[in-house]
Amino acid sequence: MPAISDKGHRMPESPIRKLVPYAEAAKARGVQVLHLNIGQPDIPTPDVALEAIRNNDLRVVEYSHSAGFASYRKGLADYYTRHGIHLTAEQVMVTTGGSEALLFGMMACFDEGDELIVPEPFYANYNGFAVAAGVKVVPVRSTIDTGFALPPIADFEQLITPRTKGILICNPGNPTGYLYGRDEMATLRDLVLKHDLYLFADEVYREFCYDGAEHVSAMTLEGLEQHVVMVDSVSKRYSMCGARVGAFVTRNAALMATVLKFAQARLSPPTFGQIASEAALRTPDSYFNEVIGEYRERRDVLVDGLNALPGVVCPKPRGAFYCVAELPVDDADAFCQWLLEHFSHEGHTVMMAPASGFYAEPGPGRRQVRLAYVLEREKLELALRVLGAALQQYANDPVPTTRVQAAR
Amino acid sequence: MPAISDKGHRMPESPIRKLVPYAEAAKARGVQVLHLNIGQPDIPTPDVALEAIRNNDLRVVEYSHSAGFASYRKGLADYYTRHGIHLTAEQVMVTTGGSEALLFGMMACFDEGDELIVPEPFYANYNGFAVAAGVKVVPVRSTIDTGFALPPIADFEQLITPRTKGILICNPGNPTGYLYGRDEMATLRDLVLKHDLYLFADEVYREFCYDGAEHVSAMTLEGLEQHVVMVDSVSKRYSMCGARVGAFVTRNAALMATVLKFAQARLSPPTFGQIASEAALRTPDSYFNEVIGEYRERRDVLVDGLNALPGVVCPKPRGAFYCVAELPVDDADAFCQWLLEHFSHEGHTVMMAPASGFYAEPGPGRRQVRLAYVLEREKLELALRVLGAALQQYANDPVPTTRVQAAR
Repeated sequence: MPAISDKGHRMPESPIRKLVPYAEAAKARGVQVLHLNIGQPDIPTPDVALEAIRNNDLRVVEYSHSAGFASYRKGLADYYTRHGIHLTAEQVMVTTGGSEALLFGMMACFDEGDELIVPEPFYANYNGFAVAAGVKVVPVRSTIDTGFALPPIADFEQLITPRTKGILICNPGNPTGYLYGRDEMATLRDLVLKHDLYLFADEVYREFCYDGAEHVSAMTLEGLEQHVVMVDSVSKRYSMCGARVGAFVTRNAALMATVLKFAQARLSPPTFGQIASEAALRTPDSYFNEVIGEYRERRDVLVDGLNALPGVVCPKPRGAFYCVAELPVDDADAFCQWLLEHFSHEGHTVMMAPASGFYAEPGPGRRQVRLAYVLEREKLELALRVLGAALQQYANDPVPTTRVQAAR
Repeated sequence: MPAISDKGHRMPESPIRKLVPYAEAAKARGVQVLHLNIGQPDIPTPDVALEAIRNNDLRVVEYSHSAGFASYRKGLADYYTRHGIHLTAEQVMVTTGGSEALLFGMMACFDEGDELIVPEPFYANYNGFAVAAGVKVVPVRSTIDTGFALPPIADFEQLITPRTKGILICNPGNPTGYLYGRDEMATLRDLVLKHDLYLFADEVYREFCYDGAEHVSAMTLEGLEQHVVMVDSVSKRYSMCGARVGAFVTRNAALMATVLKFAQARLSPPTFGQIASEAALRTPDSYFNEVIGEYRERRDVLVDGLNALPGVVCPKPRGAFYCVAELPVDDADAFCQWLLEHFSHEGHTVMMAPASGFYAEPGPGRRQVRLAYVLEREKLELALRVLGAALQQYANDPVPTTRVQAAR
């Protein structure tokens, strides 16, 4: 039997997936599972996008251009320009989700063993793309005490080696929800210029900023025209995760030409998803006002509720729809599993993502979880009651199965 | 300015793309270009698939499972089983086109520098996936004299080294249209078993076999349960290239589990494409009878027409919708460019894919072109008249620009 590749062995499993069988078993027992573990919004996709799909009159579902519909690239460039990021269609390439934009970018910029510094905790799938591209992820620690602000510049400098080729940020951040301010972005700019690095900015949550906070795109940093790659996606903006349409954005023409070669090999991004995405550009502002208002309210409900629980600490994020909370437990992985395996309250339990999966080493996230506030207010309130009761019971008697066994 | 990666430099350009600017210029001059260069069928997508898209009632376009809709995987397994390939849903993973299935398979099976033997001429994008995955493609030459039959087993044996980890075939073949017979498949089986290799079989043209020829899937080879990966796609079967839905198929459970990790990193295949693909499973047999009849007629028109041109040799393929022809020219790349730059007949010219792009070295394909018969009969007949006139003129006076320049 032929062997699996080393790369295949090194490829990380989804840190959330290992809990899925426990969630399925809980559901089979009749327990309702409140999913705070995934970033799949319940917000409706804009009508204008859904209608474009329903009204499409294609007779042959053809390949599109490898770089995407020309009209959609132009429309996207105009969208960014309206949001203060001045771009032409040639600087925007349509990809199959933000995932593909990241993978193409890594392959086009980095070689086997090159190092990419990433503030942690970070989106777990960055590890997957890095393994696929042969890139070494070098984490730089941000901490819950600062609300996961950008680590001090000295921490970055300490990690830079001759193999360091780039920095990757997610802004606003998954899993922390942290939004980098203008000062932090200027710090990154100077660092990138000083060491002639690529700056990859995953800005797929750009629209979701709260409390009047301003989003500072890496694309607006002066002097970084050749250095910045912006990764974008329609998944969260229009609650259209399944469309699988993203964008690779750069002003570096040589890099764009290189990425186009990777795009040509896979032929084209999805035609239906592009139809929906191009139509979604006509989404009225009122949609975003409503959605942002909804997320902000949910954030307040969840984060305030978490901080009201004894021993729970959760910085209030100003962007995206995630937060990272520290719990009064020794091992959040075990607690999250216990919630699914052994606990219910009012017929419900809660599924969360243990934060260990968002750190390069398990230590610093050991007591932390990521929660996504993609459920409606009432469900979040219920989830908080369930979590409160669970923490209380877990502190007193973490393994109720011993009682079950004793009773037999 | 940070550097492009070595991998990015090594990534091949599409061999067809370099001619695109000349085709655009020809169109701008008012010349109609007959596209025999690409495998984009003009055949309508089945109504049942298009209707499923138009009638979809999604409110939120969610991620699907990373392995694809469970119902679609089951439906696909049943489809294969009906076609003599007995599979369960767990042995079928939905991918974003056949392209992604190939890339995932290469990454899960092969490491940097591992060798993959591929009969050439071969689908040019295999080079792209190999560069992305760090795999070394080792071509084994098939020749036009045998109609591009499987090369002798001794030729394979000669190429096998300790780094050889697999063989990749396309059956029926792009670009040759060659369909491997039962004997050839048995030869491959023995070779794969003897050296404990993976056998990757790109079978996306499976349905398109002519003259009563039988398609022998690699999945039906006995004793290769752990060795075979089948790559599939809805692109050609249902003329639905833009759906971007394919499948990674294997009975090797460890390999499937590894590929699932790559699939999880990119989250999910496209939702709309899966809706169309699942509905397409209900396509009536009459559709395939019609389409196969249509392609067979086109093949006869094109291949017989080519062989009737002085000095042109074109084996008649029994599958897919391509053929490779040898032309009475020194350099097919130059001739294909000349056709677009300097020639028209009845207001038309012909765009073909120079075969050099389908060989690892330019030599053996120097006088060959790939033609796709994805245009209707009348257009193919016109293309043949245009090509015949072009070959005649090219033989007498290949560069009419000299006349233009002399006249100035």
